[in-house]
Amino acid sequence: MEENDTSASSVMFQRVSESFDKQALMKSIGASLVDVREGSVSIRCMFLDETKQQHGFAHAAVAFAIGDSAAGYSALTMMEPGHEVLTSEMKINLLSPAIGDYLMATGEVVKAGRKLIIVRATVVAVTDGQEKDVAILQGTMVPVTR
Amino acid sequence: MEENDTSASSVMFQRVSESFDKQALMKSIGASLVDVREGSVSIRCMFLDETKQQHGFAHAAVAFAIGDSAAGYSALTMMEPGHEVLTSEMKINLLSPAIGDYLMATGEVVKAGRKLIIVRATVVAVTDGQEKDVAILQGTMVPVTR
Amino acid sequence: MEENDTSASSVMFQRVSESFDKQALMKSIGASLVDVREGSVSIRCMFLDETKQQHGFAHAAVAFAIGDSAAGYSALTMMEPGHEVLTSEMKINLLSPAIGDYLMATGEVVKAGRKLIIVRATVVAVTDGQEKDVAILQGTMVPVTR
Amino acid sequence: MEENDTSASSVMFQRVSESFDKQALMKSIGASLVDVREGSVSIRCMFLDETKQQHGFAHAAVAFAIGDSAAGYSALTMMEPGHEVLTSEMKINLLSPAIGDYLMATGEVVKAGRKLIIVRATVVAVTDGQEKDVAILQGTMVPVTR
Repeated sequence: MEENDTSASSVMFQRVSESFDKQALMKSIGASLVDVREGSVSIRCMFLDETKQQHGFAHAAVAFAIGDSAAGYSALTMMEPGHEVLTSEMKINLLSPAIGDYLMATGEVVKAGRKLIIVRATVVAVTDGQEKDVAILQGTMVPVTR
Repeated sequence: MEENDTSASSVMFQRVSESFDKQALMKSIGASLVDVREGSVSIRCMFLDETKQQHGFAHAAVAFAIGDSAAGYSALTMMEPGHEVLTSEMKINLLSPAIGDYLMATGEVVKAGRKLIIVRATVVAVTDGQEKDVAILQGTMVPVTR
Repeated sequence: MEENDTSASSVMFQRVSESFDKQALMKSIGASLVDVREGSVSIRCMFLDETKQQHGFAHAAVAFAIGDSAAGYSALTMMEPGHEVLTSEMKINLLSPAIGDYLMATGEVVKAGRKLIIVRATVVAVTDGQEKDVAILQGTMVPVTR
Repeated sequence: MEENDTSASSVMFQRVSESFDKQALMKSIGASLVDVREGSVSIRCMFLDETKQQHGFAHAAVAFAIGDSAAGYSALTMMEPGHEVLTSEMKINLLSPAIGDYLMATGEVVKAGRKLIIVRATVVAVTDGQEKDVAILQGTMVPVTR
Protein backbone atom coordinates (compact mmCIF):
# COMPACT_ATOMS: atom_id res chain seq x y z
CA MET A 1 0.00 0.00 0.00
CA GLU A 2 2.64 2.44 1.08
CA GLU A 3 4.67 1.57 -1.93
CA ASN A 4 1.72 2.35 -4.15
CA ASP A 5 1.08 5.58 -2.34
CA THR A 6 4.67 6.60 -2.73
CA SER A 7 4.55 5.64 -6.34
CA ALA A 8 1.34 7.58 -6.97
CA SER A 9 2.80 10.52 -5.11
CA SER A 10 5.99 10.30 -7.13
CA VAL A 11 4.04 10.24 -10.42
CA MET A 12 2.08 13.27 -9.23
CA PHE A 13 5.23 15.17 -8.33
CA GLN A 14 6.76 14.36 -11.69
CA ARG A 15 3.70 15.54 -13.55
CA VAL A 16 3.53 18.87 -11.73
CA SER A 17 7.29 19.23 -11.92
CA GLU A 18 7.29 18.82 -15.71
CA SER A 19 4.85 21.69 -16.08
CA PHE A 20 6.54 23.80 -13.41
CA ASP A 21 9.93 23.49 -15.05
CA LYS A 22 8.48 24.88 -18.30
CA GLN A 23 7.43 28.06 -16.52
CA ALA A 24 10.37 30.35 -17.12
CA LEU A 25 8.88 32.91 -14.75
CA MET A 26 9.09 30.52 -11.81
CA LYS A 27 12.83 30.15 -12.33
CA SER A 28 13.26 33.90 -12.93
CA ILE A 29 11.75 34.79 -9.58
CA GLY A 30 13.64 32.08 -7.69
CA ALA A 31 10.70 29.75 -7.09
CA SER A 32 10.93 25.97 -6.69
CA LEU A 33 8.44 23.18 -6.16
CA VAL A 34 8.71 21.70 -2.68
CA ASP A 35 5.64 19.58 -2.05
CA VAL A 36 2.95 17.95 -4.19
CA ARG A 37 -0.02 16.13 -2.68
CA GLU A 38 -3.45 15.37 -4.03
CA GLY A 39 -5.23 18.71 -3.87
CA SER A 40 -2.34 20.63 -2.32
CA VAL A 41 0.96 21.99 -3.66
CA SER A 42 3.68 24.09 -2.01
CA ILE A 43 6.14 26.42 -3.72
CA ARG A 44 9.14 28.05 -2.08
CA CYS A 45 10.56 31.33 -3.33
CA MET A 46 13.80 33.15 -2.59
CA PHE A 47 14.06 36.90 -2.15
CA LEU A 48 15.90 38.17 -5.19
CA ASP A 49 17.04 41.73 -5.85
CA GLU A 50 15.36 41.41 -9.24
CA THR A 51 11.88 41.01 -7.76
CA LYS A 52 11.80 43.84 -5.24
CA GLN A 53 9.42 46.77 -5.21
CA GLN A 54 10.30 50.33 -4.22
CA HIS A 55 10.44 49.66 -0.46
CA GLY A 56 12.80 46.70 -0.71
CA PHE A 57 10.14 44.06 -0.12
CA ALA A 58 9.28 41.41 -2.67
CA HIS A 59 6.74 42.87 -5.10
CA ALA A 60 3.09 41.91 -4.59
CA ALA A 61 3.30 40.22 -7.97
CA VAL A 62 5.76 37.69 -6.53
CA ALA A 63 3.31 36.68 -3.81
CA PHE A 64 0.66 36.54 -6.53
CA ALA A 65 2.87 34.45 -8.83
CA ILE A 66 3.68 31.74 -6.30
CA GLY A 67 0.24 31.77 -4.66
CA ASP A 68 -1.48 31.50 -8.03
CA SER A 69 0.89 28.74 -9.18
CA ALA A 70 0.54 26.75 -5.96
CA ALA A 71 -3.23 27.00 -6.32
CA GLY A 72 -3.13 26.09 -10.01
CA TYR A 73 -0.92 23.06 -9.49
CA SER A 74 -3.15 21.93 -6.62
CA ALA A 75 -5.92 21.84 -9.20
CA LEU A 76 -3.71 19.95 -11.64
CA THR A 77 -3.16 17.13 -9.13
CA MET A 78 -6.88 16.38 -9.29
CA MET A 79 -7.20 16.24 -13.05
CA GLU A 80 -6.89 13.50 -15.61
CA PRO A 81 -3.50 13.19 -17.36
CA GLY A 82 -3.28 15.20 -20.58
CA HIS A 83 -4.87 18.26 -19.04
CA GLU A 84 -3.42 21.56 -17.90
CA VAL A 85 -5.06 24.38 -15.98
CA LEU A 86 -5.28 28.09 -16.59
CA THR A 87 -6.15 30.77 -14.07
CA SER A 88 -9.55 32.23 -14.82
CA GLU A 89 -9.59 34.70 -11.96
CA MET A 90 -7.72 35.25 -8.73
CA LYS A 91 -8.17 37.55 -5.74
CA ILE A 92 -5.29 38.37 -3.44
CA ASN A 93 -5.37 40.11 -0.05
CA LEU A 94 -1.97 41.28 1.11
CA LEU A 95 -1.49 40.95 4.86
CA SER A 96 2.06 42.11 5.54
CA PRO A 97 5.22 43.06 3.66
CA ALA A 98 7.01 40.18 1.93
CA ILE A 99 10.33 40.13 3.69
CA GLY A 100 12.31 37.40 5.47
CA ASP A 101 14.48 34.41 4.61
CA TYR A 102 12.13 33.01 1.98
CA LEU A 103 8.47 32.85 0.94
CA MET A 104 6.34 29.73 0.97
CA ALA A 105 3.05 29.40 -0.89
CA THR A 106 0.63 26.56 -0.27
CA GLY A 107 -2.34 26.02 -2.54
CA GLU A 108 -5.37 23.82 -1.98
CA VAL A 109 -8.43 22.76 -3.95
CA VAL A 110 -11.71 23.82 -2.37
CA LYS A 111 -13.95 22.29 -5.01
CA ALA A 112 -12.96 20.33 -8.07
CA GLY A 113 -15.75 20.65 -10.60
CA ARG A 114 -15.66 19.37 -14.13
CA LYS A 115 -15.45 22.82 -15.73
CA LEU A 116 -14.17 24.96 -12.85
CA ILE A 117 -11.84 24.24 -9.96
CA ILE A 118 -12.15 26.59 -6.98
CA VAL A 119 -8.85 27.08 -5.18
CA ARG A 120 -7.25 28.93 -2.30
CA ALA A 121 -3.66 29.67 -1.35
CA THR A 122 -1.71 31.12 1.53
CA VAL A 123 1.68 32.80 1.22
CA VAL A 124 3.90 33.12 4.28
CA ALA A 125 7.30 34.69 4.83
CA VAL A 126 9.66 32.56 6.89
CA THR A 127 12.34 34.23 9.03
CA ASP A 128 14.48 32.13 11.36
CA GLY A 129 11.89 29.38 11.11
CA GLN A 130 9.02 31.70 12.12
CA GLU A 131 6.11 32.09 9.69
CA LYS A 132 4.30 35.36 9.06
CA ASP A 133 1.25 35.54 6.81
CA VAL A 134 1.95 37.60 3.70
CA ALA A 135 -1.06 36.97 1.50
CA ILE A 136 -4.18 34.88 0.98
CA LEU A 137 -5.64 34.10 -2.42
CA GLN A 138 -8.97 32.74 -3.63
CA GLY A 139 -9.77 31.98 -7.25
CA THR A 140 -10.86 29.80 -10.13
CA MET A 141 -8.90 27.51 -12.43
CA VAL A 142 -10.19 26.12 -15.71
CA PRO A 143 -8.99 22.83 -17.19
CA VAL A 144 -7.58 22.96 -20.72
CA THR A 145 -6.55 20.12 -22.98
CA ARG A 146 -2.93 20.29 -23.97
CA MET B 1 -2.11 77.75 -18.49
CA GLU B 2 -0.85 75.14 -20.86
CA GLU B 3 2.62 75.70 -19.62
CA ASN B 4 1.43 75.14 -16.07
CA ASP B 5 -0.41 72.02 -17.11
CA THR B 6 2.66 70.69 -18.81
CA SER B 7 4.70 71.56 -15.80
CA ALA B 8 2.28 69.89 -13.40
CA SER B 9 2.15 66.88 -15.69
CA SER B 10 5.91 66.78 -15.86
CA VAL B 11 6.22 66.91 -12.07
CA MET B 12 3.70 64.10 -11.81
CA PHE B 13 5.58 61.97 -14.33
CA GLN B 14 8.81 62.57 -12.48
CA ARG B 15 7.29 61.58 -9.16
CA VAL B 16 5.82 58.34 -10.47
CA SER B 17 8.94 57.65 -12.46
CA GLU B 18 11.17 57.95 -9.39
CA SER B 19 9.15 55.30 -7.59
CA PHE B 20 8.80 53.13 -10.69
CA ASP B 21 12.54 53.10 -11.30
CA LYS B 22 13.10 51.74 -7.79
CA GLN B 23 10.94 48.71 -8.53
CA ALA B 24 13.47 46.15 -9.67
CA LEU B 25 10.69 43.79 -10.68
CA MET B 26 9.39 46.23 -13.28
CA LYS B 27 12.75 46.26 -15.01
CA SER B 28 13.14 42.49 -14.66
CA ILE B 29 9.90 41.82 -16.51
CA GLY B 30 10.58 44.41 -19.22
CA ALA B 31 8.06 47.00 -18.09
CA SER B 32 8.32 50.75 -18.64
CA LEU B 33 6.24 53.76 -17.72
CA VAL B 34 4.59 55.30 -20.76
CA ASP B 35 1.92 57.71 -19.59
CA VAL B 36 1.09 59.51 -16.34
CA ARG B 37 -2.03 61.62 -15.92
CA GLU B 38 -3.98 62.63 -12.85
CA GLY B 39 -5.82 59.46 -11.86
CA SER B 40 -4.52 57.34 -14.74
CA VAL B 41 -1.18 55.67 -15.52
CA SER B 42 -0.10 53.39 -18.37
CA ILE B 43 2.67 50.81 -18.32
CA ARG B 44 4.05 48.96 -21.32
CA CYS B 45 5.63 45.53 -21.04
CA MET B 46 7.68 43.47 -23.45
CA PHE B 47 7.33 39.73 -23.88
CA LEU B 48 10.45 38.21 -22.41
CA ASP B 49 11.46 34.54 -22.43
CA GLU B 50 12.06 34.93 -18.70
CA THR B 51 8.41 35.66 -17.92
CA LYS B 52 6.67 32.92 -19.85
CA GLN B 53 4.47 30.20 -18.42
CA GLN B 54 4.29 26.62 -19.64
CA HIS B 55 2.29 27.36 -22.82
CA GLY B 56 4.62 30.10 -24.06
CA PHE B 57 2.35 32.99 -23.08
CA ALA B 58 3.34 35.65 -20.57
CA HIS B 59 2.55 34.33 -17.08
CA ALA B 60 -0.64 35.61 -15.43
CA ALA B 61 1.61 37.19 -12.82
CA VAL B 62 3.02 39.52 -15.49
CA ALA B 63 -0.45 40.83 -16.34
CA PHE B 64 -1.05 41.11 -12.60
CA ALA B 65 2.25 42.94 -12.04
CA ILE B 66 1.70 45.64 -14.63
CA GLY B 67 -2.05 45.98 -14.02
CA ASP B 68 -1.49 46.27 -10.28
CA SER B 69 1.34 48.78 -10.76
CA ALA B 70 -0.62 50.89 -13.26
CA ALA B 71 -3.51 50.97 -10.79
CA GLY B 72 -1.22 51.76 -7.85
CA TYR B 73 0.53 54.60 -9.63
CA SER B 74 -2.82 56.00 -10.72
CA ALA B 75 -3.60 56.26 -7.03
CA LEU B 76 -0.24 57.87 -6.35
CA THR B 77 -0.99 60.71 -8.80
CA MET B 78 -3.88 61.77 -6.56
CA MET B 79 -1.96 61.84 -3.30
CA GLU B 80 0.00 64.47 -1.44
CA PRO B 81 3.78 64.44 -1.96
CA GLY B 82 5.64 62.32 0.59
CA HIS B 83 3.19 59.46 0.32
CA GLU B 84 3.45 56.09 -1.36
CA VAL B 85 0.77 53.47 -1.92
CA LEU B 86 0.63 49.78 -1.18
CA THR B 87 -1.76 47.26 -2.67
CA SER B 88 -4.23 46.07 -0.06
CA GLU B 89 -6.12 43.68 -2.32
CA MET B 90 -6.49 43.05 -6.02
CA LYS B 91 -8.75 40.88 -8.14
CA ILE B 92 -7.82 39.88 -11.66
CA ASN B 93 -9.97 38.26 -14.33
CA LEU B 94 -7.97 36.83 -17.20
CA LEU B 95 -9.71 37.22 -20.56
CA SER B 96 -7.30 35.79 -23.12
CA PRO B 97 -3.72 34.51 -23.37
CA ALA B 98 -1.04 37.19 -23.05
CA ILE B 99 0.64 36.98 -26.43
CA GLY B 100 1.48 39.59 -29.09
CA ASP B 101 4.01 42.36 -29.71
CA TYR B 102 3.72 43.87 -26.25
CA LEU B 103 1.35 44.32 -23.29
CA MET B 104 -0.13 47.63 -22.18
CA ALA B 105 -1.72 48.17 -18.77
CA THR B 106 -3.80 51.23 -17.97
CA GLY B 107 -4.88 51.96 -14.42
CA GLU B 108 -7.45 54.42 -13.20
CA VAL B 109 -8.74 55.70 -9.88
CA VAL B 110 -12.41 54.97 -9.26
CA LYS B 111 -12.59 56.61 -5.85
CA ALA B 112 -9.85 58.40 -3.96
CA GLY B 113 -10.71 58.25 -0.28
CA ARG B 114 -8.46 59.43 2.51
CA LYS B 115 -7.71 55.93 3.79
CA LEU B 116 -8.50 53.77 0.77
CA ILE B 117 -8.20 54.34 -2.95
CA ILE B 118 -10.35 52.12 -5.15
CA VAL B 119 -8.75 51.39 -8.50
CA ARG B 120 -9.26 49.51 -11.73
CA ALA B 121 -6.94 48.48 -14.53
CA THR B 122 -7.12 46.94 -17.97
CA VAL B 123 -4.34 44.97 -19.62
CA VAL B 124 -4.31 44.55 -23.40
CA ALA B 125 -2.00 42.70 -25.75
CA VAL B 126 -1.07 44.67 -28.85
CA THR B 127 -0.28 42.85 -32.09
CA ASP B 128 0.32 44.81 -35.29
CA GLY B 129 -1.39 47.76 -33.64
CA GLN B 130 -4.50 45.74 -32.78
CA GLU B 131 -5.52 45.54 -29.14
CA LYS B 132 -6.91 42.43 -27.48
CA ASP B 133 -8.13 42.43 -23.88
CA VAL B 134 -5.94 40.23 -21.69
CA ALA B 135 -7.10 41.06 -18.17
CA ILE B 136 -9.15 43.39 -16.00
CA LEU B 137 -8.32 44.21 -12.40
CA GLN B 138 -10.22 45.80 -9.54
CA GLY B 139 -8.73 46.53 -6.14
CA THR B 140 -7.79 48.73 -3.22
CA MET B 141 -4.68 50.78 -2.53
CA VAL B 142 -3.71 52.19 0.87
CA PRO B 143 -1.60 55.31 1.32
CA VAL B 144 1.56 54.97 3.38
CA THR B 145 3.94 57.64 4.56
CA ARG B 146 7.46 57.13 3.31
CA MET C 1 -34.56 48.59 -39.69
CA GLU C 2 -35.66 50.51 -36.68
CA GLU C 3 -38.71 48.37 -36.44
CA ASN C 4 -36.54 45.26 -36.41
CA ASP C 5 -34.27 46.78 -33.81
CA THR C 6 -37.23 47.62 -31.66
CA SER C 7 -38.57 44.17 -32.15
CA ALA C 8 -35.26 42.52 -31.26
CA SER C 9 -34.92 44.81 -28.28
CA SER C 10 -38.43 43.99 -27.20
CA VAL C 11 -37.79 40.24 -27.45
CA MET C 12 -34.64 40.71 -25.39
CA PHE C 13 -36.47 42.69 -22.72
CA GLN C 14 -39.18 40.05 -22.57
CA ARG C 15 -36.66 37.26 -22.18
CA VAL C 16 -34.79 38.95 -19.35
CA SER C 17 -38.03 40.07 -17.79
CA GLU C 18 -39.39 36.53 -17.68
CA SER C 19 -36.37 35.35 -15.71
CA PHE C 20 -36.27 38.49 -13.55
CA ASP C 21 -39.92 38.10 -12.53
CA LYS C 22 -39.19 34.58 -11.26
CA GLN C 23 -36.58 35.92 -8.84
CA ALA C 24 -38.57 36.41 -5.67
CA LEU C 25 -35.62 38.13 -4.05
CA MET C 26 -35.69 40.93 -6.61
CA LYS C 27 -39.28 41.74 -5.70
CA SER C 28 -38.58 41.37 -1.97
CA ILE C 29 -35.85 44.01 -2.05
CA GLY C 30 -37.86 46.40 -4.24
CA ALA C 31 -35.88 45.92 -7.45
CA SER C 32 -37.23 46.32 -10.96
CA LEU C 33 -35.84 45.92 -14.44
CA VAL C 34 -35.47 49.27 -16.20
CA ASP C 35 -33.30 48.78 -19.27
CA VAL C 36 -32.18 45.82 -21.37
CA ARG C 37 -29.69 46.19 -24.23
CA GLU C 38 -27.36 43.71 -25.86
CA GLY C 39 -24.59 43.28 -23.30
CA SER C 40 -25.98 45.76 -20.78
CA VAL C 41 -28.85 45.68 -18.29
CA SER C 42 -30.00 48.20 -15.67
CA ILE C 43 -31.91 47.47 -12.47
CA ARG C 44 -33.46 50.06 -10.18
CA CYS C 45 -33.99 49.43 -6.50
CA MET C 46 -35.99 51.26 -3.86
CA PHE C 47 -34.80 51.82 -0.31
CA LEU C 48 -36.95 49.62 1.88
CA ASP C 49 -36.94 49.44 5.67
CA GLU C 50 -36.66 45.68 5.26
CA THR C 51 -33.24 45.86 3.59
CA LYS C 52 -31.40 48.23 5.88
CA GLN C 53 -28.28 47.46 7.89
CA GLN C 54 -27.51 48.73 11.37
CA HIS C 55 -26.65 52.32 10.31
CA GLY C 56 -29.83 52.86 8.32
CA PHE C 57 -28.21 52.46 4.90
CA ALA C 58 -29.17 49.74 2.46
CA HIS C 59 -27.20 46.58 3.36
CA ALA C 60 -24.14 45.82 1.23
CA ALA C 61 -25.99 42.68 0.14
CA VAL C 62 -28.58 44.84 -1.63
CA ALA C 63 -25.90 46.54 -3.73
CA PHE C 64 -24.47 43.07 -4.34
CA ALA C 65 -27.88 41.65 -5.30
CA ILE C 66 -28.72 44.25 -7.91
CA GLY C 67 -25.16 44.62 -9.21
CA ASP C 68 -24.80 40.86 -9.55
CA SER C 69 -28.21 40.55 -11.24
CA ALA C 70 -27.56 43.44 -13.64
CA ALA C 71 -24.26 41.79 -14.57
CA GLY C 72 -25.86 38.36 -14.91
CA TYR C 73 -28.68 39.58 -17.12
CA SER C 74 -26.19 41.47 -19.26
CA ALA C 75 -24.58 38.10 -19.89
CA LEU C 76 -27.97 36.54 -20.64
CA THR C 77 -28.62 39.04 -23.44
CA MET C 78 -25.65 37.62 -25.32
CA MET C 79 -26.61 33.97 -25.07
CA GLU C 80 -28.67 31.64 -27.20
CA PRO C 81 -32.32 31.15 -26.20
CA GLY C 82 -32.85 28.25 -23.81
CA HIS C 83 -29.88 29.20 -21.65
CA GLU C 84 -29.68 30.80 -18.25
CA VAL C 85 -26.64 32.06 -16.36
CA LEU C 86 -25.37 31.46 -12.86
CA THR C 87 -22.86 33.56 -10.96
CA SER C 88 -19.60 31.70 -10.57
CA GLU C 89 -17.78 34.42 -8.63
CA MET C 90 -18.22 38.10 -7.94
CA LYS C 91 -16.09 40.77 -6.31
CA ILE C 92 -17.60 43.94 -4.94
CA ASN C 93 -15.85 47.11 -3.76
CA LEU C 94 -18.08 49.38 -1.73
CA LEU C 95 -17.42 53.07 -2.37
CA SER C 96 -19.93 54.96 -0.25
CA PRO C 97 -23.00 54.29 1.90
CA ALA C 98 -26.11 53.24 -0.02
CA ILE C 99 -28.50 56.05 0.77
CA GLY C 100 -30.62 58.36 -1.38
CA ASP C 101 -33.86 58.26 -3.38
CA TYR C 102 -33.09 54.96 -5.10
CA LEU C 103 -30.26 52.72 -6.27
CA MET C 104 -29.45 51.97 -9.90
CA ALA C 105 -27.24 49.09 -11.01
CA THR C 106 -25.88 48.81 -14.53
CA GLY C 107 -24.17 45.64 -15.69
CA GLU C 108 -22.09 45.08 -18.79
CA VAL C 109 -20.39 42.18 -20.52
CA VAL C 110 -16.62 42.55 -20.78
CA LYS C 111 -16.00 39.28 -22.58
CA ALA C 112 -18.53 36.72 -23.71
CA GLY C 113 -16.75 33.38 -23.97
CA ARG C 114 -18.43 30.08 -24.69
CA LYS C 115 -17.92 28.71 -21.17
CA LEU C 116 -17.39 31.87 -19.13
CA ILE C 117 -18.77 35.38 -19.43
CA ILE C 118 -16.75 38.09 -17.72
CA VAL C 119 -18.91 40.93 -16.45
CA ARG C 120 -18.77 44.22 -14.58
CA ALA C 121 -21.38 46.34 -12.86
CA THR C 122 -21.68 49.74 -11.25
CA VAL C 123 -24.19 50.63 -8.55
CA VAL C 124 -25.07 54.28 -7.94
CA ALA C 125 -27.35 56.00 -5.43
CA VAL C 126 -29.50 58.72 -6.96
CA THR C 127 -30.60 61.67 -4.82
CA ASP C 128 -32.48 64.57 -6.41
CA GLY C 129 -31.21 63.39 -9.77
CA GLN C 130 -27.57 63.39 -8.65
CA GLU C 131 -25.64 60.11 -8.90
CA LYS C 132 -23.13 58.94 -6.34
CA ASP C 133 -21.07 55.77 -6.83
CA VAL C 134 -21.99 53.12 -4.27
CA ALA C 135 -20.24 50.01 -5.55
CA ILE C 136 -18.37 48.42 -8.41
CA LEU C 137 -18.44 44.72 -9.19
CA GLN C 138 -16.35 42.41 -11.35
CA GLY C 139 -17.08 38.74 -11.86
CA THR C 140 -17.77 35.63 -13.88
CA MET C 141 -21.04 34.12 -15.12
CA VAL C 142 -21.43 30.57 -16.40
CA PRO C 143 -24.10 29.54 -18.92
CA VAL C 144 -26.42 26.72 -17.90
CA THR C 145 -29.03 24.94 -19.92
CA ARG C 146 -32.50 25.26 -18.48
CA MET D 1 -11.72 31.15 34.98
CA GLU D 2 -14.52 29.42 33.18
CA GLU D 3 -16.96 31.79 34.70
CA ASN D 4 -14.95 34.71 33.38
CA ASP D 5 -14.74 33.13 29.97
CA THR D 6 -18.43 32.59 29.90
CA SER D 7 -18.98 36.13 31.03
CA ALA D 8 -16.63 37.55 28.39
CA SER D 9 -18.28 35.34 25.81
CA SER D 10 -21.69 36.49 26.92
CA VAL D 11 -20.69 40.16 26.65
CA MET D 12 -19.35 39.50 23.19
CA PHE D 13 -22.55 37.75 22.11
CA GLN D 14 -24.60 40.62 23.45
CA ARG D 15 -22.54 43.20 21.62
CA VAL D 16 -22.77 41.42 18.28
CA SER D 17 -26.41 40.63 18.90
CA GLU D 18 -27.27 44.29 19.48
CA SER D 19 -25.84 45.25 16.11
CA PHE D 20 -27.27 42.19 14.37
CA ASP D 21 -30.77 42.90 15.61
CA LYS D 22 -30.62 46.38 14.05
CA GLN D 23 -29.99 44.89 10.63
CA ALA D 24 -33.47 44.67 9.19
CA LEU D 25 -32.15 42.73 6.21
CA MET D 26 -30.99 39.88 8.42
CA LYS D 27 -34.51 39.41 9.75
CA SER D 28 -36.04 39.83 6.28
CA ILE D 29 -34.00 36.96 4.87
CA GLY D 30 -34.58 34.68 7.87
CA ALA D 31 -31.09 34.91 9.35
CA SER D 32 -30.22 34.53 13.02
CA LEU D 33 -27.04 34.71 15.06
CA VAL D 34 -26.02 31.30 16.38
CA ASP D 35 -22.46 31.51 17.63
CA VAL D 36 -20.08 34.31 18.63
CA ARG D 37 -16.44 33.65 19.57
CA GLU D 38 -13.39 35.88 19.48
CA GLY D 39 -12.55 36.12 15.80
CA SER D 40 -15.35 33.83 14.59
CA VAL D 41 -19.12 34.24 14.18
CA SER D 42 -21.77 31.91 12.77
CA ILE D 43 -25.10 32.88 11.22
CA ARG D 44 -27.91 30.51 10.33
CA CYS D 45 -30.40 31.29 7.58
CA MET D 46 -33.70 29.72 6.62
CA PHE D 47 -34.81 29.15 3.04
CA LEU D 48 -37.63 31.58 2.43
CA ASP D 49 -39.78 31.86 -0.69
CA GLU D 50 -38.99 35.57 -0.62
CA THR D 51 -35.27 35.06 -1.20
CA LYS D 52 -35.29 32.60 -4.08
CA GLN D 53 -33.82 33.15 -7.51
CA GLN D 54 -35.29 31.89 -10.78
CA HIS D 55 -34.31 28.23 -10.30
CA GLY D 56 -35.81 27.92 -6.82
CA PHE D 57 -32.48 28.08 -4.97
CA ALA D 58 -31.63 30.81 -2.49
CA HIS D 59 -30.28 33.80 -4.43
CA ALA D 60 -26.49 34.25 -4.46
CA ALA D 61 -27.10 37.51 -2.61
CA VAL D 62 -28.39 35.51 0.39
CA ALA D 63 -25.15 33.54 0.61
CA PHE D 64 -23.34 36.85 0.20
CA ALA D 65 -25.44 38.54 2.90
CA ILE D 66 -24.85 35.94 5.59
CA GLY D 67 -21.23 35.23 4.63
CA ASP D 68 -20.42 38.94 4.60
CA SER D 69 -22.20 39.49 7.92
CA ALA D 70 -20.55 36.50 9.60
CA ALA D 71 -17.18 37.83 8.43
CA GLY D 72 -17.98 41.37 9.52
CA TYR D 73 -19.13 40.35 12.98
CA SER D 74 -16.03 38.19 13.37
CA ALA D 75 -14.07 41.39 12.87
CA LEU D 76 -16.27 43.20 15.38
CA THR D 77 -15.41 40.69 18.11
CA MET D 78 -11.79 41.80 17.89
CA MET D 79 -12.41 45.53 18.14
CA GLU D 80 -12.64 47.98 21.00
CA PRO D 81 -16.15 48.80 22.27
CA GLY D 82 -17.70 51.80 20.53
CA HIS D 83 -16.62 50.66 17.07
CA GLU D 84 -18.54 49.13 14.23
CA VAL D 85 -17.25 47.65 10.98
CA LEU D 86 -18.16 48.26 7.38
CA THR D 87 -17.40 46.00 4.44
CA SER D 88 -14.81 47.56 2.20
CA GLU D 89 -14.68 44.76 -0.35
CA MET D 90 -15.76 41.15 -0.57
CA LYS D 91 -15.18 38.36 -3.05
CA ILE D 92 -17.47 35.37 -3.24
CA ASN D 93 -16.98 32.10 -5.11
CA LEU D 94 -20.17 30.08 -5.43
CA LEU D 95 -19.58 26.34 -5.18
CA SER D 96 -22.99 24.75 -5.42
CA PRO D 97 -26.68 25.73 -5.45
CA ALA D 98 -28.03 26.99 -2.13
CA ILE D 99 -30.67 24.40 -1.32
CA GLY D 100 -31.37 22.24 1.73
CA ASP D 101 -32.86 22.55 5.21
CA TYR D 102 -30.96 25.73 6.09
CA LEU D 103 -27.77 27.68 5.36
CA MET D 104 -24.96 28.24 7.86
CA ALA D 105 -22.28 30.91 7.41
CA THR D 106 -19.13 30.97 9.51
CA GLY D 107 -16.79 33.94 9.39
CA GLU D 108 -13.27 34.23 10.72
CA VAL D 109 -10.64 36.94 11.08
CA VAL D 110 -7.46 36.24 9.15
CA LYS D 111 -5.64 39.40 10.17
CA ALA D 112 -6.84 42.14 12.47
CA GLY D 113 -4.95 45.29 11.58
CA ARG D 114 -5.62 48.71 13.03
CA LYS D 115 -7.10 50.12 9.83
CA LEU D 116 -8.11 46.99 7.95
CA ILE D 117 -9.38 43.60 9.08
CA ILE D 118 -8.94 40.77 6.59
CA VAL D 119 -11.68 38.17 6.86
CA ARG D 120 -12.91 34.93 5.34
CA ALA D 121 -16.21 33.08 5.48
CA THR D 122 -17.67 29.77 4.43
CA VAL D 123 -21.35 29.16 3.67
CA VAL D 124 -22.72 25.63 3.78
CA ALA D 125 -26.16 24.20 3.10
CA VAL D 126 -27.29 21.62 5.64
CA THR D 127 -29.66 18.83 4.61
CA ASP D 128 -30.54 16.06 7.07
CA GLY D 129 -27.49 17.04 9.06
CA GLN D 130 -25.16 16.76 6.05
CA GLU D 131 -23.15 19.85 5.06
CA LYS D 132 -22.47 20.88 1.50
CA ASP D 133 -20.23 23.84 0.63
CA VAL D 134 -22.22 26.62 -1.01
CA ALA D 135 -19.79 29.53 -1.06
CA ILE D 136 -16.48 30.87 0.19
CA LEU D 137 -15.78 34.56 0.75
CA GLN D 138 -12.64 36.61 1.27
CA GLY D 139 -12.62 40.32 2.00
CA THR D 140 -11.76 43.42 3.97
CA MET D 141 -13.58 45.17 6.81
CA VAL D 142 -12.85 48.70 7.99
CA PRO D 143 -13.50 49.89 11.54
CA VAL D 144 -15.74 52.92 11.95
CA THR D 145 -16.55 54.89 15.07
CA ARG D 146 -20.23 54.92 15.87
